[in-house]
Amino acid sequence: MMEAASRGEDALTALTALVRDDLEACNRLIVEKMQSPVALIPQLAAHIVAAGGKRLRPLLTLAAARLCGYRGPRHVALAACVEFIHTATLLHDDVVDESALRRGQASANALFGNKPSVLVGDFLFARAFELMVQDGSLTVLAILSAASATIAEGEVLQLVIQNDTTTTEAQYLQVIEGKTAALFAAATRIGAVVADRAVAEEAALDTYGRALGTAFQLVDDALDYSAAQEQLGKTVGDDFREGKITLPVLLAFERGTEAERVFWRRTIEDRAQQPEDLAEAQRLMERHGALRDTVERARVYGDQALAALAGFPESAEKRALADIVEFCIARAR
Amino acid sequence: MMEAASRGEDALTALTALVRDDLEACNRLIVEKMQSPVALIPQLAAHIVAAGGKRLRPLLTLAAARLCGYRGPRHVALAACVEFIHTATLLHDDVVDESALRRGQASANALFGNKPSVLVGDFLFARAFELMVQDGSLTVLAILSAASATIAEGEVLQLVIQNDTTTTEAQYLQVIEGKTAALFAAATRIGAVVADRAVAEEAALDTYGRALGTAFQLVDDALDYSAAQEQLGKTVGDDFREGKITLPVLLAFERGTEAERVFWRRTIEDRAQQPEDLAEAQRLMERHGALRDTVERARVYGDQALAALAGFPESAEKRALADIVEFCIARAR
Repeated sequence: MMEAASRGEDALTALTALVRDDLEACNRLIVEKMQSPVALIPQLAAHIVAAGGKRLRPLLTLAAARLCGYRGPRHVALAACVEFIHTATLLHDDVVDESALRRGQASANALFGNKPSVLVGDFLFARAFELMVQDGSLTVLAILSAASATIAEGEVLQLVIQNDTTTTEAQYLQVIEGKTAALFAAATRIGAVVADRAVAEEAALDTYGRALGTAFQLVDDALDYSAAQEQLGKTVGDDFREGKITLPVLLAFERGTEAERVFWRRTIEDRAQQPEDLAEAQRLMERHGALRDTVERARVYGDQALAALAGFPESAEKRALADIVEFCIARAR
Repeated sequence: MMEAASRGEDALTALTALVRDDLEACNRLIVEKMQSPVALIPQLAAHIVAAGGKRLRPLLTLAAARLCGYRGPRHVALAACVEFIHTATLLHDDVVDESALRRGQASANALFGNKPSVLVGDFLFARAFELMVQDGSLTVLAILSAASATIAEGEVLQLVIQNDTTTTEAQYLQVIEGKTAALFAAATRIGAVVADRAVAEEAALDTYGRALGTAFQLVDDALDYSAAQEQLGKTVGDDFREGKITLPVLLAFERGTEAERVFWRRTIEDRAQQPEDLAEAQRLMERHGALRDTVERARVYGDQALAALAGFPESAEKRALADIVEFCIARAR
């Protein structure tokens, strides 16, 4: 099991190594473009932008552009745009979720307050569009502005269904396709756009990114209840405490007895939780194979992502993008 | 005094009448483009977008385009973009200011909560960019994305100087030029862009909008302490209660005795306020001519706005845009 997880990590390392120079240029541009005469903006932005993160989305843009044979410099700025949009949504998410932690550190809202987090998110979002305008492709602007609207729709829908155990799987999928998969799809698709490739390749990379993002989020939602994660010293139970509706909860609820449903209604709908409830939630999920089947579902999307790459000629980038599917899924082991 | 105010209202009515068909088309487009399969989005957006407001900024875009001789339909969509950006910032402002009221009604955050207000703001902002992309002008996109970043910078700076009586007038001006004047300038400037006019006319309309917006905000900041407003049954004292640093406060502080400064530090810096403090603040402002001089300052910017129109040939639009300067200032009487 550890082997699978480490194979996943290797895939991320390999992808990062493959586009190392581009990624470094992208990171430099990110730091340069988050500057402002208003000192609090780079201070707060640095906390979230510069302080780690896998840079998965910009990596996807960089690798997709190379996969499509692009050899110019434009993909670097576009990868930075993607990361700015992602960062803006993280800042706003943490305000909305009232999160105290992000990547194991104090979140920006916890450290600087909600107000600057909202406004610096707005700044980064606007800055992303300024960068896209400098690049000058209306196609890229169309893709990333549409993705941004879809992300917001997904986030609002997530809020609407929060604490509601009658949510359908279709609604849940709509949420994660909005809040996560839309930006993955845009990130990879603009790789084909910048390389000026045919619409079919644009569509294939859109499908790849969308399926990958969906798999990524499904696994994320499983990890939040994972006993293995707990053993690794990672935080679990955030979604549970917030009463967030995710596939593991929906599967356990759907397959549960009436007594179990009373438990889910109390903890998720009423959020009347006792300290021992998370362990009970994990036991119920184990009993009904809810985490296993969530990861299985992720695997189906992972296979869709792999299939979408089939038409591209063999290359180091194609192998790295294929292996990153394993990275997204193997985290669950 | 009432006469001046009513002459101002007449100017707004005249401008609205002049571009009535365009404004109606713009309002229809606003309602159409705020739709989403996620029902909460149009519900919340309707509360703020469709429920009144003067539509001053889109009116400026519509009139500026006509002033420049534009006769096509594009200015309608661009005016809607400007209003969407404005609305997004209002939603986020009300969250940041914890405002319970907006235009005399319950604010969106008070009615729907902070979380959807943040996310629907994001949606409207993204939707504005989608609309601009459909229009297809990279120049317009550059102007409005830069303005959006500047607005966020102004808002963050306002947060940084909040409650700080050592703020300089220059910093205060930087705040209002960011949070208010930048969008006025962009709104009028894109009127020249859409009409494909020379750079000099673009610059003149930028200057007009920027000066008008600065005057507008100065008067807004004076109105928040105005006894006349109070007599009209309007709310005053919001800025005071929040400890917001505005020019009336800076002038009264600057010109005040040491004992008066103790009062300002207690009420604005420490926000340790008693019910009778607002009346005392108004008395001190009266004593030092703080409101009168704030409006005088607005008049200087108003004159700059008028001067910027000088190069345009006489027309109904030019007269209406000149008269709207009086509307922005006469509200203070």
